[in-house]
Amino acid sequence: MAAIGVDLGGTKVLGVLVEGGEVVAQAKLDTPRGGADQVVTAVAECARRLGDPAAVAGVGVGAPGVVASGTGDVVRAPNLAGFEARVPLGAMLAAALDGARVVVDNDVNAALLAEHCLGAGRASNDVLGVWVGTGVGGALVLDGRLRRGPGGGAGEIGHTTVAGVDRRCGCGQLGHLEAVAGRAAMEDEARRRHAAGEHTALVELAGRKRMKSSVFAKALDAGDQLAGELLDDAVAALGAALSSAAALVDLDLVVVGGGLADKLGSQFVGRVEQAVRTRLFVPTSALRVVPAALGDLAGALGAALLLDA
Amino acid sequence: MAAIGVDLGGTKVLGVLVEGGEVVAQAKLDTPRGGADQVVTAVAECARRLGDPAAVAGVGVGAPGVVASGTGDVVRAPNLAGFEARVPLGAMLAAALDGARVVVDNDVNAALLAEHCLGAGRASNDVLGVWVGTGVGGALVLDGRLRRGPGGGAGEIGHTTVAGVDRRCGCGQLGHLEAVAGRAAMEDEARRRHAAGEHTALVELAGRKRMKSSVFAKALDAGDQLAGELLDDAVAALGAALSSAAALVDLDLVVVGGGLADKLGSQFVGRVEQAVRTRLFVPTSALRVVPAALGDLAGALGAALLLDA
Repeated sequence: MAAIGVDLGGTKVLGVLVEGGEVVAQAKLDTPRGGADQVVTAVAECARRLGDPAAVAGVGVGAPGVVASGTGDVVRAPNLAGFEARVPLGAMLAAALDGARVVVDNDVNAALLAEHCLGAGRASNDVLGVWVGTGVGGALVLDGRLRRGPGGGAGEIGHTTVAGVDRRCGCGQLGHLEAVAGRAAMEDEARRRHAAGEHTALVELAGRKRMKSSVFAKALDAGDQLAGELLDDAVAALGAALSSAAALVDLDLVVVGGGLADKLGSQFVGRVEQAVRTRLFVPTSALRVVPAALGDLAGALGAALLLDA
Repeated sequence: MAAIGVDLGGTKVLGVLVEGGEVVAQAKLDTPRGGADQVVTAVAECARRLGDPAAVAGVGVGAPGVVASGTGDVVRAPNLAGFEARVPLGAMLAAALDGARVVVDNDVNAALLAEHCLGAGRASNDVLGVWVGTGVGGALVLDGRLRRGPGGGAGEIGHTTVAGVDRRCGCGQLGHLEAVAGRAAMEDEARRRHAAGEHTALVELAGRKRMKSSVFAKALDAGDQLAGELLDDAVAALGAALSSAAALVDLDLVVVGGGLADKLGSQFVGRVEQAVRTRLFVPTSALRVVPAALGDLAGALGAALLLDA
């Protein structure tokens, strides 16, 4: 049966209509900035553009925050206006859609579900997804099923502590992977070192605008030293965090997605795999590290797949 | 139905007969040093002293190494003579016991299973066990079941990388938790710093013998500065590793066992809990850190419980 999936992001609401594992229609809106009611209205509008929610299996939503297990409640999504405290997104959306079936999960959980069912994670039942973008998101499939955990917070590889890092993470803690390997943290560090007198093409290319992933890709291609050092640090931190994850839960696959990883391409993923392999506790482990295969649509596609689970 | 459980350790083979969740008989032998055949004979002898293996549910064994999932094969157990390479322990033991039912798992998996079913972990379905002894062992119960993973290696919290640590682990890698919080690593560091001129009661108390857990407890009680610093480092490393584990899999309980933790007592576990709580990604998490409740028998008791699983 067809299903609608919506990837609710900080800047856009991206919806897809999925039939037989294929995306047959898409719709996109800007994410409103005026509070939770507006966001719910936008998600409902996006879903309705794709079909009658009552005539399909339902509407799945991937949200950028912690979703309480077994509820449709978003506990905290700092990148969505009006979601600083708990919001019953699932119940609000079901009401807005006249009682249609609604399932809500974390956005990276949804994206990894898509990669596991239809993309780069099909070969394995024990997969860690790591999404390297503005921050570093994560999700886990263990024994073939998404791991959510008692609080719904499982998979947060970006907020695990890595070796030799004293930078402060956006979450307030010290030494997290995200504070070294996230695009925003890398931008902060580049601007700090540039202000302290280091030359870098990163600031020349970005100016005062956001230092996009494409800026990092260009600076690296041009042999910029500071960009190279930031990437070396990111790769080393990913190597430590992913090898620790493999020791803790035993994995046979890591799928790397996200905006920065997509722009840096397969060479970046290959370097991460090398960094992980040199640190594995079980050197004979068959663990592989591969790029995500479904691109920007993974989140919305996975949100639709939530209805099958 | 009654069952026999055997904790196969590096120095002793400890067996129990379990009926209705209670230990009703015990048997103990020294672990032979002459190879895998001798070890199998000792385990079989230990089991037979407790009853007729064919008249009970079977014989469960906890072994100090990686056990390949779904087999009784010990992939590698460096502390057992003759187990440097893969040994089909389950099949060999079943043959020695005339075809009795035999189940083999990792020893810390067995101990955590006992704590989960009958001890300190009863209140939770998502528990990490961390066994702080000569090394640092670990095991995971997720969604109420032992996590083994595709290679059987899950739970190895001792071989996750912690921040700001440059000591080499017994496994050869740098910066692992075990290299800071394991008793053997703490002894190595104490002797190194003593040889470099630092005064410490640790070396006075231990002399040339093994620096037992009780030696650390005595030196700490006496206010020894070096012992205090080593313990501070161990607590901080445990705080980092356990908070990272909580971020990755979402836990609501950590059970702390093992020889060193037992000797240092509830104050040590309280300090570890404090260190974890200050580093949690979700500060409102209900995660608790508690001491193991079943003592030295946990491994053998859990091995018997493997037959119910």
